Amino acid sequence: MVTVPGVDIGRPAVVIIAGPCAVESEEQLLSTARAVKAGGARILRGGAFKPRTSPYSFQGLKEEGLRLLALARAETGLPVVTEVMDARHLEMVSSCADILQIGSRNMQNFTLLEEVGKCRMPVLLKRGMSATLAEYLQAAEYVMKGGNDQVVLCERGIRTFEPSTRNTLDLNAIPMLKRETHLPALVDPSHGTGHWWMVPRLACAAVAAGADGLLVEVHCDPPSALSDGAHALTPGAFEQMMKEVASIAAAVGRPLK
Amino acid sequence: MVTVPGVDIGRPAVVIIAGPCAVESEEQLLSTARAVKAGGARILRGGAFKPRTSPYSFQGLKEEGLRLLALARAETGLPVVTEVMDARHLEMVSSCADILQIGSRNMQNFTLLEEVGKCRMPVLLKRGMSATLAEYLQAAEYVMKGGNDQVVLCERGIRTFEPSTRNTLDLNAIPMLKRETHLPALVDPSHGTGHWWMVPRLACAAVAAGADGLLVEVHCDPPSALSDGAHALTPGAFEQMMKEVASIAAAVGRPLK
Amino acid sequence: MVTVPGVDIGRPAVVIIAGPCAVESEEQLLSTARAVKAGGARILRGGAFKPRTSPYSFQGLKEEGLRLLALARAETGLPVVTEVMDARHLEMVSSCADILQIGSRNMQNFTLLEEVGKCRMPVLLKRGMSATLAEYLQAAEYVMKGGNDQVVLCERGIRTFEPSTRNTLDLNAIPMLKRETHLPALVDPSHGTGHWWMVPRLACAAVAAGADGLLVEVHCDPPSALSDGAHALTPGAFEQMMKEVASIAAAVGRPLK
Amino acid sequence: MVTVPGVDIGRPAVVIIAGPCAVESEEQLLSTARAVKAGGARILRGGAFKPRTSPYSFQGLKEEGLRLLALARAETGLPVVTEVMDARHLEMVSSCADILQIGSRNMQNFTLLEEVGKCRMPVLLKRGMSATLAEYLQAAEYVMKGGNDQVVLCERGIRTFEPSTRNTLDLNAIPMLKRETHLPALVDPSHGTGHWWMVPRLACAAVAAGADGLLVEVHCDPPSALSDGAHALTPGAFEQMMKEVASIAAAVGRPLK
Repeated sequence: MVTVPGVDIGRPAVVIIAGPCAVESEEQLLSTARAVKAGGARILRGGAFKPRTSPYSFQGLKEEGLRLLALARAETGLPVVTEVMDARHLEMVSSCADILQIGSRNMQNFTLLEEVGKCRMPVLLKRGMSATLAEYLQAAEYVMKGGNDQVVLCERGIRTFEPSTRNTLDLNAIPMLKRETHLPALVDPSHGTGHWWMVPRLACAAVAAGADGLLVEVHCDPPSALSDGAHALTPGAFEQMMKEVASIAAAVGRPLK
Repeated sequence: MVTVPGVDIGRPAVVIIAGPCAVESEEQLLSTARAVKAGGARILRGGAFKPRTSPYSFQGLKEEGLRLLALARAETGLPVVTEVMDARHLEMVSSCADILQIGSRNMQNFTLLEEVGKCRMPVLLKRGMSATLAEYLQAAEYVMKGGNDQVVLCERGIRTFEPSTRNTLDLNAIPMLKRETHLPALVDPSHGTGHWWMVPRLACAAVAAGADGLLVEVHCDPPSALSDGAHALTPGAFEQMMKEVASIAAAVGRPLK
Repeated sequence: MVTVPGVDIGRPAVVIIAGPCAVESEEQLLSTARAVKAGGARILRGGAFKPRTSPYSFQGLKEEGLRLLALARAETGLPVVTEVMDARHLEMVSSCADILQIGSRNMQNFTLLEEVGKCRMPVLLKRGMSATLAEYLQAAEYVMKGGNDQVVLCERGIRTFEPSTRNTLDLNAIPMLKRETHLPALVDPSHGTGHWWMVPRLACAAVAAGADGLLVEVHCDPPSALSDGAHALTPGAFEQMMKEVASIAAAVGRPLK
Repeated sequence: MVTVPGVDIGRPAVVIIAGPCAVESEEQLLSTARAVKAGGARILRGGAFKPRTSPYSFQGLKEEGLRLLALARAETGLPVVTEVMDARHLEMVSSCADILQIGSRNMQNFTLLEEVGKCRMPVLLKRGMSATLAEYLQAAEYVMKGGNDQVVLCERGIRTFEPSTRNTLDLNAIPMLKRETHLPALVDPSHGTGHWWMVPRLACAAVAAGADGLLVEVHCDPPSALSDGAHALTPGAFEQMMKEVASIAAAVGRPLK
């Protein structure tokens, strides 16, 4: 069990983490944060430092983004998860985050893993896009070896030959991780599919498969999003998804709170 | 909607198809058939002609296997799905089957697809293990072009880099197929995982993702199975799985009958 | 060593097989056949029965295509390799071919493998697009178990996540197959890349890796080809490629004849 | 063209970079360095900081390893390439290296790429194990955007479903990269195969495909290597490989010096 102020990740509740891919502005972040809180999310996500495939894409608001996340936390009371891309930013990111996210591309950035292993803060370690589950658990071991056992895993889709979806969400990973480790395991159906209209169905599937929570991207205006608008839910779609997820969670005997 | 005597595949019911990987003996088949019927399966599966990677593995009872399937149908009243591997066996297999299965390895055996396209019998066309969804729908088109539109699709796991599971079950395929075609789409969590203990979780996930049914392998004594014992459920485990699947089906507003 | 009239496949010569993807007309086939003979090919390839992803694509000239292949053989003296897709066509195809090709999609069409195993004719068995090398050798075993040990292997690219090429040519396969089996192993750089301008470089790489020959698509007018024009070489480009291949073959101590 | 003291990478010469996976001791490094120089290598490779899948594996000699590399350079006159895993080590590594290597796992460690982009030193950027070529070129762009255009690419095998080799060496990448960019492109047949006995064949294939050089692991005593002994060549095997590579290089009109 990993504990964030006010939220236990791991059994029994299915914990929903939601928010925009990137923090873009005060208004964008606050309106989305309020909406996901109203919809039932328990933790707010939002990227201030954004690892982008191209150097010419929007790279995040960085320090200003962190400031806005702190503001959103103060306003909504939701704890915040945000990505740290570089050990040199760790102090700055830690001061605004409740959970440090290590992104897929950094799953084997071993010196970064060692640094977050020295923190005493929960770490959300996303699976690398072509990492085997054995490699994934060894990456978690890099964090835990440093003394930080507050690690949360997250399946987010793997790279396969199928071109119609951004990634192939590997839900087999959930029962396998549950068997191999005590760590909580979440699912990110947003990156795992790449299409907003598929997200609710895979969110339900993830909970049915035994996931301890979901990481879902929500944007107040997806067509204008500076990154990953194609898989962002509107607040209304998120609210609808939450009703469906609640039914599935109830069917597997788990509350959302 | 595809109709088998007594069963509609497609909305609203989630249809469970269960039985052994291979027909091995009268006793093995009948005991398993009775058990899956008691557990709530609506269609019996069982292989008489078995496509095996090695020529030195058990290849199925062939004609004798078909005879036993007909016997099991007579005894239980369950319609039967069984694989046809060769156009030359089509008449023989058709005489004992209610649904013709085209296996993954034959998804692009185009002359076989054309032949079953000339039948007036439902066809369960499994996805090839490295087929894109676009290729899969074109394979279905080979059947339908011949005039047979009674095609049922089935996601059964794709080949990826992950070694801990036999295949990676691609549940993204379900909402994508639902969007791209009117054909019913099932999921085979047995081949999709390769581990019996994972099957119930992925079966539930499949139903939550919107699958119109499941294809599940059940064996009265998995350790002695002549093929694929590692992912076969015992009758008891199947019964337990059905309870869990029923809860999920109810949560998505679908009956099992 | 596998022997076709006038040609030994296996050491020491590197055997070049060339011709169009599909037989389209007498003029197209004969002009291409003459050109590849002039360029140094020792065997003519050409498809009469074409396995196509879509049922609405050109499916080959079938029986008429076989007649044209026999004509091209009579005119050029080149032995012919052509694909057999269905056991029911075996007698017809055998009467016109010197080597029976089993295509990638049929690598695990086990009843077809068993039938060609009963022939006493060389078989060119292409690797399936997602077959492991272990599965590939077991497929060859299906042929050899029937008593036909005249099997030639052919690496033709595997399916991966890389989208810029049609397949990923797996040249690691050549030394691995050489270590695991006595069977000759060819490479098809046309399907393995999907781009005509890459073919000569990968053809040279294949010979340097130890391939016993090449299977290359050549068309007298690629832009008008009814299938796979994107990777077909013109006769002129083929001639140029042969010079480069001859240098590499010489460097590894093997003749082209 | 990228220039290291005494060596131009890019046409016309094929540049061979060789040395141990990891620097293990003065004797191990110096004996291997002398051997690869004698065999014809023009640049010495050796890892001081080692990114290892497990935190419990040997992690490299770190600063002491860099000192030994400087010593080997002084003794043999060979320029040195070594990996930098963390921006905080950049000054230390730069002081001992002639080329900075960014390993596969860090191909999308964007802050590290930006830092080496501020250096005025050549960078050897290895392809990520599941990176598309488009993503790979965008990673190079992160370095070049900072003003450092001394980037050398290196194909080192991609992750596929094939289990018999450590990776699948993607030689299609070489002509594709040559068409898409002016940057030199090397091949690493050691990681690309995972088996020492396959390395010479794929090294030859790489040169035939148009590679501008090779990165090859050599160890004075592979069975006692602290990492990746399975694909390390002995000095004798390296010498033999160099003869074969020289023949292929000559056949494609390129010297080794």
